Amino acid sequence: MAKKKEHKTTPVEKKLIGVADTVIHAAERRQDPTLSIPVRSLSNVTFSEKKGMIEMGKKKQERSFFNVGMAKKFMQTVLVADALSELQRAGLTTSLREIYYRTKHTLKDSHENTFDSQDESDPVIEDLEASLEALREELHVRAESAGSVVGPLVLVDDGDTVNCTRLGKGGYSVPSIVEPEYLSIKKCTADFVLLVEKGTQWNRLSEDKFWRRYNCILLTGNGQPPRGIRRLTRRLHEEKGLPVYVLVDNDPWGYYIYSVVKQGSINLAFESQRMAIPKAKFIGLSSGDPETYGLPRNVGIKLNEKDIARAKELLAYPWFQKSDWQKEIKRMLQSGLKYELDALANKDFQYLTKKYLPKKLKERDWLD
Amino acid sequence: MAKKKEHKTTPVEKKLIGVADTVIHAAERRQDPTLSIPVRSLSNVTFSEKKGMIEMGKKKQERSFFNVGMAKKFMQTVLVADALSELQRAGLTTSLREIYYRTKHTLKDSHENTFDSQDESDPVIEDLEASLEALREELHVRAESAGSVVGPLVLVDDGDTVNCTRLGKGGYSVPSIVEPEYLSIKKCTADFVLLVEKGTQWNRLSEDKFWRRYNCILLTGNGQPPRGIRRLTRRLHEEKGLPVYVLVDNDPWGYYIYSVVKQGSINLAFESQRMAIPKAKFIGLSSGDPETYGLPRNVGIKLNEKDIARAKELLAYPWFQKSDWQKEIKRMLQSGLKYELDALANKDFQYLTKKYLPKKLKERDWLD
Repeated sequence: MAKKKEHKTTPVEKKLIGVADTVIHAAERRQDPTLSIPVRSLSNVTFSEKKGMIEMGKKKQERSFFNVGMAKKFMQTVLVADALSELQRAGLTTSLREIYYRTKHTLKDSHENTFDSQDESDPVIEDLEASLEALREELHVRAESAGSVVGPLVLVDDGDTVNCTRLGKGGYSVPSIVEPEYLSIKKCTADFVLLVEKGTQWNRLSEDKFWRRYNCILLTGNGQPPRGIRRLTRRLHEEKGLPVYVLVDNDPWGYYIYSVVKQGSINLAFESQRMAIPKAKFIGLSSGDPETYGLPRNVGIKLNEKDIARAKELLAYPWFQKSDWQKEIKRMLQSGLKYELDALANKDFQYLTKKYLPKKLKERDWLD
Repeated sequence: MAKKKEHKTTPVEKKLIGVADTVIHAAERRQDPTLSIPVRSLSNVTFSEKKGMIEMGKKKQERSFFNVGMAKKFMQTVLVADALSELQRAGLTTSLREIYYRTKHTLKDSHENTFDSQDESDPVIEDLEASLEALREELHVRAESAGSVVGPLVLVDDGDTVNCTRLGKGGYSVPSIVEPEYLSIKKCTADFVLLVEKGTQWNRLSEDKFWRRYNCILLTGNGQPPRGIRRLTRRLHEEKGLPVYVLVDNDPWGYYIYSVVKQGSINLAFESQRMAIPKAKFIGLSSGDPETYGLPRNVGIKLNEKDIARAKELLAYPWFQKSDWQKEIKRMLQSGLKYELDALANKDFQYLTKKYLPKKLKERDWLD
């Protein structure tokens, strides 16, 4: 186990210690200890056309200890940095919720808690991620557990060699943290990655050994892909040069899932550099597919008001300005219907594996 | 791949064909085709003290084709039975949602759909499960994807030998269907199964290799355990004689999760015979633990009205009548607080692995 090795101060740990140093240096000089935290609001987020990703700007705000309005948040930041250092020293990982519990206590001789709810500790962790330029995973903080992978991929996890072609239909359960420190990609002979939104379709593809026939890696996060799945996809793209195709429902939420994989998200703009995959392609379901593949209108679902409002928001996003995307989204609005991938079962239980995806791949029918 | 083998009619397929036979025989005799379906309402559910499980009674209702109020449902039942037969013949599995899409069409020369929503097809599948005495999994219908397992367990999935001691921290991604037809337990040298409600704690235990030190199998469903996790736990209990310990949050929902694992659920009473584990033990969090383990009150969460109402409902359930359980639930109500397992991190990130569970196991401190 990596964590049992003799402890060497990690680069991330050094950054965390830097937070404490700021306080000590200021105290020594009888100055006001101040941390400089990047602004994480919409005003400091831009879409870089050139890089094809959502990025955080350079605006920063000072957080100082001797300011009544900031003192508590300053103290909280130092407490969280301390807990995160503890994780680094011990070589442990934990969850956002446990960080909250770990750092919560009642201040001596008072009824004041360091934190009253996780809503206070989560943003502090994001502040530290942004200001230290360290991914949450590098800070050893797990997100929810992730999803599954099968295909021609050999990983090393905790010293165990995991061959993802030899794990039946179930596959390897992707951990939340897949940074090289924890998971290495030993071998990958696939031609591409297929990132599937929902478990149902992933199960169909895994059961049918689609990965074997099309020499690909099948990944799913059982819904909006969690961070571990996104990071593993990104690593396969970056380190192994694999193209990434995203398969989602045909609705505004499917489009959005794709856009987060591709450009990153507004909320976590500071992470796009490490999470986004600007070359990812949208392979379906497209609003043109029901006609192309002869899906009857009665398996479409009427767009509700929320869907329509969301689709209109998407139309306005800078990263959906390409004419093909405008056409794609407008066609959905015009039809008044959305379609789930599950609806392909109306044709045949194996339609996805045997007809839909083969045709899509053969005709290179995807959106960029 | 098992599914490529020459097709032999399976016992379940024979039962499904029996549904069609009922129609044909009746038609030949110019009688009203009628199916006999067990009643799945609370009035037909009992708790068997002796068996320690929730069971379905013997009440049945007739569903006939020539009854105006039943004709549509009868037709739906036959359509679903047909789709399920198709799965058996092809050796495929699918989801509830795909069954809905597969069987949905508009009746010829009408605007009438066979099904208008999944709310109509799901109960029909449950009717067939109950009347054919076949688990949903035996009908090849998947539930949501499941969770993860690590520990001294060797499985065979689709011809692949999966050694759950050699899959790092991530582990094997448990499929939704774990029936012997799909997954066999090749070897299991563990002493017990620890079924963990939440992924956070499972990750902690997996990271710390708790399973190695305590020779156990660690299972989680990342929340309320899905069917695949419950069935795998039951199989390990039944086929390998392993005791099962359930680790949940200390709140009414945690108690309920435990009770479903142990006695089965009211809604799916007809499945208890194959799903319930009457000997499962509740290992924590107990409402006595905060005191025993010195958890401060400020990491407890105030019970809200819903919690209190739910706890009172639990107090009235026949399967919570044991005096220890009455004491357990009443103590939570008296304290006015609930505690998450995550709160153990307040002591130390590894408190669960190094102190809490070792003491619980050593002192055999669990509830039956």
